[in-house]
Amino acid sequence: MKLLRYGPPGQEKPALVAADGSLRDLSVHVPDISPWVLDPKALDELRVLDPASLPKVEEGVRIGTPIANIGKLICVGLNYADHAKESNLPVPSEPVLFMKATSAICGPNDAVIIPRGSEKTDWEVELGIVIGRKAQYVEREQALEHVAGYCIVNDVSERAYQLERGGTWDKGKGCDTFAPIGPWLVTADEIADLRNLDMHLSVNGETRQQGNTRTMIFSIDEIVSYISQFMTLNPGDVICTGTPPGVGAGMKPPQFLKAGDRMRLSISGLGEQCQEVVAWSR
Amino acid sequence: MKLLRYGPPGQEKPALVAADGSLRDLSVHVPDISPWVLDPKALDELRVLDPASLPKVEEGVRIGTPIANIGKLICVGLNYADHAKESNLPVPSEPVLFMKATSAICGPNDAVIIPRGSEKTDWEVELGIVIGRKAQYVEREQALEHVAGYCIVNDVSERAYQLERGGTWDKGKGCDTFAPIGPWLVTADEIADLRNLDMHLSVNGETRQQGNTRTMIFSIDEIVSYISQFMTLNPGDVICTGTPPGVGAGMKPPQFLKAGDRMRLSISGLGEQCQEVVAWSR
Repeated sequence: MKLLRYGPPGQEKPALVAADGSLRDLSVHVPDISPWVLDPKALDELRVLDPASLPKVEEGVRIGTPIANIGKLICVGLNYADHAKESNLPVPSEPVLFMKATSAICGPNDAVIIPRGSEKTDWEVELGIVIGRKAQYVEREQALEHVAGYCIVNDVSERAYQLERGGTWDKGKGCDTFAPIGPWLVTADEIADLRNLDMHLSVNGETRQQGNTRTMIFSIDEIVSYISQFMTLNPGDVICTGTPPGVGAGMKPPQFLKAGDRMRLSISGLGEQCQEVVAWSR
Repeated sequence: MKLLRYGPPGQEKPALVAADGSLRDLSVHVPDISPWVLDPKALDELRVLDPASLPKVEEGVRIGTPIANIGKLICVGLNYADHAKESNLPVPSEPVLFMKATSAICGPNDAVIIPRGSEKTDWEVELGIVIGRKAQYVEREQALEHVAGYCIVNDVSERAYQLERGGTWDKGKGCDTFAPIGPWLVTADEIADLRNLDMHLSVNGETRQQGNTRTMIFSIDEIVSYISQFMTLNPGDVICTGTPPGVGAGMKPPQFLKAGDRMRLSISGLGEQCQEVVAWSR
């Protein structure tokens, strides 16, 4: 099942993607894709619906982030061996965690705003895990039972803020619009092999990142189990699982985003994001 | 005005503190101390109420965190010169930022849970800033116009998770119950001098931290302005502004919390918190 939210920012309505690719409104069945809708039983109630019986959503509507009220956005850094290498950082012995401010969340095709004065805004295509059931001190073997599904996240990052302004990475990770999520929350049952998802990101049509989840250092079940030892994961929380090689900061010479650029991101089975980069203006 | 929320976790009701110290229920006027209630105009509407006309809250009720739906919890690290010294870290040239998971938030007198296997759970009394109006690229001169008020925060920290487990500080800052907030949100007009607030924390009756906001490196207006250059601050966001010296990790030898300990925290005009420390149990 592919769930999504559509409509103007702050007024999104719930929908799903039918087999023919059309979007079907779910408002009669659930008020929103709220955290409680991600519970396995609640998802099952949506699964039995006949998409053809649901109202068709008009084409060309804005797509929002597929989950309402995301409580936290936790990220695993340096989780692809080849990305750690391009960043000149050692492969971590346990997951590196940091957080993105939830105020950075936006729709998958919304504009990404370069912060005022920023010169090093960079891209990162990532596989996002959406938590469906509360996870607290969960063992690796049970970890996937707590996952509702997956989505694409662009972990947009300002490298100077992240690395040159003191303190932790958070400063360069949580700027407004730095977390496009979606287009869909794809439920876990639709992903045949988590260790074999192609990932791709292009800027202005030129491939920048091309990777596959098979080169992840810490796998999805390890990550969920690991984070749940430090904090309770709640339904609707999203975990970004790291980016494959090809970020702008790793290019020789480094390249960063500028106004007018267009990013396109895709992950097998999870759809596609497309963002225009714009300069900040009041 | 001193605003608070009382009642069982997740079912808190809004209230204020009357001049005689009694708690008065505000449910007839606002459904909760939600972010929109922190707007200056909404606060003015509460300010004109006669507390004596409001229903008295029975004594001994649980006090919750004073703001509902806190969107983000941003922290400034090493913001007291003498605390930086005890941590063997240089005084930062610009604010050090990190984030606490909002799932760590609890009431001011709720039990603080030592994470499973933790041996280095530590205390940090901090002045919390509560945002009342959206702040984006705010100049220092206008920064305080965006502040609804202040509160006490205990920035509970697991030092091994924070410093010895790789990655950023966030891993040791966001464990469940690691952010007791309250008892009150004290509106800004009640604080005569932000640069002269006594801060105190004791464990089992023994003073551990004693400080004053006059030794802060970056002041409240600087902090709000600074963070607003990196991300939009929204009503209901809380900023923790750093801790004075006296944390357990800085003691010789270091001392950490154990089950049965009692922490007591106070800041001039902002009331008092008291937490029992308990071991984690399922």
